[in-house]
Amino acid sequence: MKQFISAQDAPNINALVSKALDYKANPFKDKTLGVNKRIGLLFFNPSMRTRLSTQIAAQNLGMECIVFNVGSEGWNLEFDDDAMMNGLTVEHIKDAAPILGNYFDILCIRTFPSLKDRSEDYSEKYINQLIKYSGIPVVSLESATLHPLQSLTDIATIKETFLEKRKPRIVLSWAPHIKPLPQCVANSFSQWVTQWGEADFIIAHPEGYDLDPMYTQGATIINNHETALQNADYVYVKNWSSYTDYGKIKSYDNDWMITKEKLHRAKDAKIMHCLPVRRNLELGGDVLDSKNSLTTLQGTNRIYAAQAVLSEILQPSI
Amino acid sequence: MKQFISAQDAPNINALVSKALDYKANPFKDKTLGVNKRIGLLFFNPSMRTRLSTQIAAQNLGMECIVFNVGSEGWNLEFDDDAMMNGLTVEHIKDAAPILGNYFDILCIRTFPSLKDRSEDYSEKYINQLIKYSGIPVVSLESATLHPLQSLTDIATIKETFLEKRKPRIVLSWAPHIKPLPQCVANSFSQWVTQWGEADFIIAHPEGYDLDPMYTQGATIINNHETALQNADYVYVKNWSSYTDYGKIKSYDNDWMITKEKLHRAKDAKIMHCLPVRRNLELGGDVLDSKNSLTTLQGTNRIYAAQAVLSEILQPSI
Amino acid sequence: MKQFISAQDAPNINALVSKALDYKANPFKDKTLGVNKRIGLLFFNPSMRTRLSTQIAAQNLGMECIVFNVGSEGWNLEFDDDAMMNGLTVEHIKDAAPILGNYFDILCIRTFPSLKDRSEDYSEKYINQLIKYSGIPVVSLESATLHPLQSLTDIATIKETFLEKRKPRIVLSWAPHIKPLPQCVANSFSQWVTQWGEADFIIAHPEGYDLDPMYTQGATIINNHETALQNADYVYVKNWSSYTDYGKIKSYDNDWMITKEKLHRAKDAKIMHCLPVRRNLELGGDVLDSKNSLTTLQGTNRIYAAQAVLSEILQPSI
Repeated sequence: MKQFISAQDAPNINALVSKALDYKANPFKDKTLGVNKRIGLLFFNPSMRTRLSTQIAAQNLGMECIVFNVGSEGWNLEFDDDAMMNGLTVEHIKDAAPILGNYFDILCIRTFPSLKDRSEDYSEKYINQLIKYSGIPVVSLESATLHPLQSLTDIATIKETFLEKRKPRIVLSWAPHIKPLPQCVANSFSQWVTQWGEADFIIAHPEGYDLDPMYTQGATIINNHETALQNADYVYVKNWSSYTDYGKIKSYDNDWMITKEKLHRAKDAKIMHCLPVRRNLELGGDVLDSKNSLTTLQGTNRIYAAQAVLSEILQPSI
Repeated sequence: MKQFISAQDAPNINALVSKALDYKANPFKDKTLGVNKRIGLLFFNPSMRTRLSTQIAAQNLGMECIVFNVGSEGWNLEFDDDAMMNGLTVEHIKDAAPILGNYFDILCIRTFPSLKDRSEDYSEKYINQLIKYSGIPVVSLESATLHPLQSLTDIATIKETFLEKRKPRIVLSWAPHIKPLPQCVANSFSQWVTQWGEADFIIAHPEGYDLDPMYTQGATIINNHETALQNADYVYVKNWSSYTDYGKIKSYDNDWMITKEKLHRAKDAKIMHCLPVRRNLELGGDVLDSKNSLTTLQGTNRIYAAQAVLSEILQPSI
Repeated sequence: MKQFISAQDAPNINALVSKALDYKANPFKDKTLGVNKRIGLLFFNPSMRTRLSTQIAAQNLGMECIVFNVGSEGWNLEFDDDAMMNGLTVEHIKDAAPILGNYFDILCIRTFPSLKDRSEDYSEKYINQLIKYSGIPVVSLESATLHPLQSLTDIATIKETFLEKRKPRIVLSWAPHIKPLPQCVANSFSQWVTQWGEADFIIAHPEGYDLDPMYTQGATIINNHETALQNADYVYVKNWSSYTDYGKIKSYDNDWMITKEKLHRAKDAKIMHCLPVRRNLELGGDVLDSKNSLTTLQGTNRIYAAQAVLSEILQPSI
């Protein structure tokens, strides 16, 4: 594996999930794989689980890990190719990245979208420039439009918990929020589940919240929440801002908040969320506190998803 | 030891002090005790000695240590049980803590008080919620009302330096400050010294600065500074804001600043302060620069106090 | 080596360069040299390459490395000897440094100048107070007036790339900038190149930008850019603010920006810059993107320069 920024970098999702779950069973089995290998984590944006779980994954493989908060510990980087740099940016990624590529064996980067300019966000300029100029494997810790480590975790969590022979019915359920959020998690989950192909996959959202069609082919899109939730095995709750009216909040509709009552037609459905979640706004506290919530399991599995990816980069086996 | 947030978690103070001083003599003797064990340091507030000494203590035990500055590297956490999270907090401790509990073997947390709502501060909501929801051992790096690693260090420093057979006379001496400070260090030192029971313990402060009586039973409280200082073996200098008129500065009285002149009735007294100290406001530079000052020793002993506590959690021996 | 804050701490520059290049060829050859040794990196200012490369150098030697962002993770330190601390500073270096000296085997510190008070900046109060009060070896990660790790890297890069028998002609070429920058890199490069003595060294700058004569003895100073650049083997591009009219920008003269066209009289000259560089303001993007640019090599060599210095402190061999 030469990079990990999209489901397309995971040719065999089931094999990668198995690798993650193997690490969960035995986290230290490859403790010497990363000896004298070094990973750099570049954060342009806040992070909790991703930050911690990736550090832990690297440690479990014996790698040396260095975290760098780009903006607060360093300075603003420029990503526009021919910039006359007389403004707020201090260094061009073209100058910084080749050196980072010589400092590290793997680079990880988190960059959020602006939510202002869709074509710029969807060009994934930041992570692509880092790939281009660093010359070493790059792992996304959530980019402008995708969050592949989260999606790998999510599928691992579903495979770990779904023991029936049939395909699970998975509903990605839009949720209200007070702030415009990226489409990353929703795009990425859709991309991974459809590419995986072993689920009946429904995307439920109010009108105006269609995702980029590039990621939803193979999914059933339903605008009626009640209908969508019926007989769900998994309900993945997540807010995202509008893709079509880019970055906007179209409606602030609490009817789309999942509560126990809402789930009366899918009582046994497992509830998923990538976290952080705003309780009683995106998702009812009663649901999050119920035994059907998988959020702790998802968060925990982040370690092993990252460990599988880093391991696969260090020593491909799939 | 299952947690370390108060003197009550240290059933045998002398044994714990001995353990700390043993580590001081031989810091690396348990270098393999923490192999494949991981400690997370969560900072909600600034820290220097506590931050560094706890990292060093963990490294001395061979543990992997990850520091997380919650507010600046992550986001604001919610601690109110039934919050409708449509404000500034992004994630509930209920959702975050169980995952952190799966990421780490020990969690450490620093949280300062608001100094606005006494009952809320004294409920120690933050650290108690972390204990409740993480399910793993939690160590206080200073909480709203107590600072047990500092107090363990302080008693270790006293035991290391007091070679006479009699009980030492220890005076906790209130000092002026320009900002309202927590009562943590004073509460905690009082709690530890009284529980330890091997000292004559005097608390000296102007009227209006009584500490929570829960922590001062067994101490002699004196409002006259001169009288209190007489014949002191140790003078522990520290400011705190009012407990009764909660969080307020009652007087800004430079007469309570300890100087060499002030110490004429206790010329050989050792001077202690947890640091940071504001020179020539809380404590005279002449005193801090004198050979009687123990602040460097206290600061250095922070490593070994933390090391004793982490070791005792990993492998109880007391 | 007991400290590394100036070229004067490097009695034999060629030997130190050789040591750095040896580490480049075999980074892990002294992986056990630093076992149970600990290095603390104190940042009062932003840093990217210095921060990362010093961590990597320490790891390559098997040291434990702790980074501390003093202002954001801790609090403001006081450096004035007899301060009455009733302002914004929370702790005096006199109180903090001896403890840091007991926490670490080596301390590294980055402190920028104010550019307001020349005599204060050039007194190097911050780093000198740390040396005085910590009592352990201190390494400059760029101080108010010098940047020795950068200069060691620069000479290593020149030695690595210059294969002719004659002396190289090296031109330090002032460049425009929109902000007043320290004189550190220019001072330091001049100090190192003149002390090294194995180059023809020209300093080119507009009038008003003379450096402290203490660092330029042995250099030829030229105010005509064209003349200075002629036949250069190396052009080291760097902005600095005025030393004589301290901290001021005297002219904002884009004619001093190096471009390919500018280099017509030194077509094969290697181009150097310590980075970060503002493209198309300090230095043309065409030059930075050309095969003659050494900035990536310089940035990469930062690891091995730091490694040589740390190694020499741990176990002197030169």
